[in-house]
Amino acid sequence: MTPSNSNSRAILLMHCPDQKGIIAVVTNFLSENNGNIIDLDEHVDPEYKTFFMRVEWDLSYFKIPVDQINKKFRQLIGNQYKMNWSLHFTDKVPRMAVFVSKLSHCLYDILSRYQSGEWKAEIPLIISNHQVLEVVAHRFDIDFKHFPIDKNNKPEQEQRQLQMLKDYKIDFIVLARYMQIVSTEFISNYPNKIINIHHSFLPAFPGARPYHSAYARGVKIIGASSHYVTAELDAGPIIEQEVVRVSHKDSVKTLVRKGQDLEKIVLSRAIWNHLERKILVFNNRTIIFE
Amino acid sequence: MTPSNSNSRAILLMHCPDQKGIIAVVTNFLSENNGNIIDLDEHVDPEYKTFFMRVEWDLSYFKIPVDQINKKFRQLIGNQYKMNWSLHFTDKVPRMAVFVSKLSHCLYDILSRYQSGEWKAEIPLIISNHQVLEVVAHRFDIDFKHFPIDKNNKPEQEQRQLQMLKDYKIDFIVLARYMQIVSTEFISNYPNKIINIHHSFLPAFPGARPYHSAYARGVKIIGASSHYVTAELDAGPIIEQEVVRVSHKDSVKTLVRKGQDLEKIVLSRAIWNHLERKILVFNNRTIIFE
Amino acid sequence: MTPSNSNSRAILLMHCPDQKGIIAVVTNFLSENNGNIIDLDEHVDPEYKTFFMRVEWDLSYFKIPVDQINKKFRQLIGNQYKMNWSLHFTDKVPRMAVFVSKLSHCLYDILSRYQSGEWKAEIPLIISNHQVLEVVAHRFDIDFKHFPIDKNNKPEQEQRQLQMLKDYKIDFIVLARYMQIVSTEFISNYPNKIINIHHSFLPAFPGARPYHSAYARGVKIIGASSHYVTAELDAGPIIEQEVVRVSHKDSVKTLVRKGQDLEKIVLSRAIWNHLERKILVFNNRTIIFE
Amino acid sequence: MTPSNSNSRAILLMHCPDQKGIIAVVTNFLSENNGNIIDLDEHVDPEYKTFFMRVEWDLSYFKIPVDQINKKFRQLIGNQYKMNWSLHFTDKVPRMAVFVSKLSHCLYDILSRYQSGEWKAEIPLIISNHQVLEVVAHRFDIDFKHFPIDKNNKPEQEQRQLQMLKDYKIDFIVLARYMQIVSTEFISNYPNKIINIHHSFLPAFPGARPYHSAYARGVKIIGASSHYVTAELDAGPIIEQEVVRVSHKDSVKTLVRKGQDLEKIVLSRAIWNHLERKILVFNNRTIIFE
Repeated sequence: MTPSNSNSRAILLMHCPDQKGIIAVVTNFLSENNGNIIDLDEHVDPEYKTFFMRVEWDLSYFKIPVDQINKKFRQLIGNQYKMNWSLHFTDKVPRMAVFVSKLSHCLYDILSRYQSGEWKAEIPLIISNHQVLEVVAHRFDIDFKHFPIDKNNKPEQEQRQLQMLKDYKIDFIVLARYMQIVSTEFISNYPNKIINIHHSFLPAFPGARPYHSAYARGVKIIGASSHYVTAELDAGPIIEQEVVRVSHKDSVKTLVRKGQDLEKIVLSRAIWNHLERKILVFNNRTIIFE
Repeated sequence: MTPSNSNSRAILLMHCPDQKGIIAVVTNFLSENNGNIIDLDEHVDPEYKTFFMRVEWDLSYFKIPVDQINKKFRQLIGNQYKMNWSLHFTDKVPRMAVFVSKLSHCLYDILSRYQSGEWKAEIPLIISNHQVLEVVAHRFDIDFKHFPIDKNNKPEQEQRQLQMLKDYKIDFIVLARYMQIVSTEFISNYPNKIINIHHSFLPAFPGARPYHSAYARGVKIIGASSHYVTAELDAGPIIEQEVVRVSHKDSVKTLVRKGQDLEKIVLSRAIWNHLERKILVFNNRTIIFE
Repeated sequence: MTPSNSNSRAILLMHCPDQKGIIAVVTNFLSENNGNIIDLDEHVDPEYKTFFMRVEWDLSYFKIPVDQINKKFRQLIGNQYKMNWSLHFTDKVPRMAVFVSKLSHCLYDILSRYQSGEWKAEIPLIISNHQVLEVVAHRFDIDFKHFPIDKNNKPEQEQRQLQMLKDYKIDFIVLARYMQIVSTEFISNYPNKIINIHHSFLPAFPGARPYHSAYARGVKIIGASSHYVTAELDAGPIIEQEVVRVSHKDSVKTLVRKGQDLEKIVLSRAIWNHLERKILVFNNRTIIFE
Repeated sequence: MTPSNSNSRAILLMHCPDQKGIIAVVTNFLSENNGNIIDLDEHVDPEYKTFFMRVEWDLSYFKIPVDQINKKFRQLIGNQYKMNWSLHFTDKVPRMAVFVSKLSHCLYDILSRYQSGEWKAEIPLIISNHQVLEVVAHRFDIDFKHFPIDKNNKPEQEQRQLQMLKDYKIDFIVLARYMQIVSTEFISNYPNKIINIHHSFLPAFPGARPYHSAYARGVKIIGASSHYVTAELDAGPIIEQEVVRVSHKDSVKTLVRKGQDLEKIVLSRAIWNHLERKILVFNNRTIIFE
């Protein structure tokens, strides 16, 4: 048999009201069209009686042409089962923009992974409200754009940023310790496509200066949380969290030092899951398929 | 429709050579017979090209009578796909024997979970080579049998133990810090049905006195490991592990104190997974379905 | 030389404004009186410029009689250095009362440690607003007192409890998932002597039903926190916290199951540190000496 | 009073046979000479009856000139108490060389910390047996020297390396996934001054390909370990370890990906402790002062 598609894979992320036989229906659809399933993970939320599934299959001998899969799936399954779904192809490399302020640890971590080929992604653009990290961007030969922001120019600067993101064909945005609150309107252009790292174990200590708050409260463990940005500050769906043990011996300064290691690891895990299309958002919570 | 089976669920654990369409085949079989899938988790080992799956379904309206499911499955699927499988029913409560020596922490933990109804299990029998913990057994109204073991009487004592396990209709055995090595012959009566807790982070420090070894080596983290018992000492398939941070300030005595908390938690998680039929053993490794 | 004191040790917990030479002064005092230091741990809070120290020494050859140490220390050091301190002796075994409601996991864990001799403590009394766990108390031959509490009788029941605690010579109280809010007046009788376990990673999810809140927020890690009880609910100084990773697959029910393992471990570590006199409270934070 | 020394601090690391009054002797010495103690941490190993201490003090008003402290300490205390000690000054910035092969993750992590000013260290030199990472060195403007090594030229190449380390005035060496075994003779030039990162939870899986071994053994947790290099492979004193949970779903490839995050964090924590003079080696174990 001649491969009808390129040597890549397709990923289907779906959710719908739970109903008998739904896995059989989808796996039959793939099986009958010569799609070899590489990975399948499903989940049923018993409270909301909702079915979730991620299925990844080899396109080498898949009978349906790539540009018709979506249509066929809608006709045969999607409509009938009242399904929400998205279809992705692994040979399409997502383009990511990084927003930063003055702290470099997350940016360096992102760029070193990018450079080593750990991620299937393009990073053509770094945006910042300060110029401090321009030198880092140049070190890695990535375009750096400076958008100084104050309370007066914010709306117009965001409009200019949006235009630039469009020009650079950006698929998703990473706020790598970008110390600005992004407007609801800006967010609406990238729903579940802006990943933030917050330097606390959410929902504890949202907002500014969480390490100071953690110190004052005397917690014995601190954390970091990555989440998709939504209109409410630090309240979007959590993608990943990690923690580290601290003690009374830690000052705010050492909490910051220990916490920054968490921040970069947690942010990079969130980016990884996003790139691998392993995340589904439902009711402000994430399902992270493994 | 009248329910043809009791209000329980069936669990199928299976593995076979990986092949296209296998999930569709199994889910169709259940769907066509009115079996509503509660939970499905699958895994493919790319190295061994082997497919693993655990599927749990509601028997309420399942068309095939409980005592014929196994036969039907063999005829329709098992033989054709060269499958290894086991079938379990949630209304069959497993019977567990606990083997102990002198340390009480794991035994108390097991009995308190049993007593609180956390586990769907029966514990009719505690066996020991010492009499120290008889008082604990009596406190919980459980039969306690004393089998003193020395190097001369071991074979005959094990024979008597096996007979007693048979009399008590024991399904699986938990070695809760039972400080005796169990013979290969004894093990062969309960393959993948004897759960041991070893007080180290295996494969580091197998055998006797692992806390002393951990102290001497100066590790910064200690662990505990639960595994199925096989002929080779402390080398059986690992079910669960957990760790805790230690420091130079810890003596062997405090390592023991910290480690015992790990031991009871790790052992109880292994028992939970065993009871829930979430474990499949392949090539001396476990697949733990979630 | 003849030992002038029993074969026990003394522990001094102290804090005072930080000042040059303070460690030398205290260690000289002990050294000159033939007190061999077993353990010394100090801490300086640079923000509050406050010095904290725990020192434990062997009394075998200590020249000052046990009943005069406090007075001598005040005269020679305490007054001059504006010190707050408390003096403890390891041969005085603390007496602990456990308050419970209906959940048994923490109680069993406490009693099994008590029974195995892990703790140097006496547990003569269990108090509950329900009768469910009376059977557990009887199993371990410990007095169980039932104080049903409703919104009308609370003040008088607390008065009766206080009298009973006095009769039993109770030194400190452990709230082992006691689902009642204790009044400010009650607390004032046992300042920094009531240890509570809260089933969340404080300050996230204080108050009722934290596992439900954790589920709704979609956190990826849950926790448990032990703290001294103060007038403000779940806001007292944190003694110990621990966490466990969860996922979207966890229901509230499995969060509860996983969380209960944390609760008992975290509570027991707090009790251990309290018994070992390793805790100093300052500004609603704890210093935990190692 | 006029400060007799620069605005820096001194650190004394010491160990000796445990004896009564030793803390008082040292703290008196500092106190009498106007040295304000910033931090003191001590430890007694009860098995070896050995006393360990790290004390850090402000030199601003210290009466003894910096270049005479060592001599004075020897005369007054060191000799009499049979002490081993080392004296360090915080205004002396250590110089570090990094050895790498082809993997970049640890190197990038080190350089991003260096660049951000997280560490008080100089990194003038990167040495490698391959040229792959030369581009990274250039990006950060650091000298890169290529020493290709095969089984024939190893002794002479190591001699050349040693000469170069001398020329660059290197104080200590970090093997950041340098995939070569360093000779005993080379090590003898930098005793407890070569830090290695091993990609397993030692003592499990020493030597080559630990992720493959971890996969084959089916462990549920993997780790990374940093240690000082000694003659015996991967058996030197452990400085720091960290772990991450894995499952049957992880291939060797994903174990590598998860493990590399551990490696860089664990290595950087070890470097931090080394730079802060918080490590004392005794009997092939480390005491890490906090």
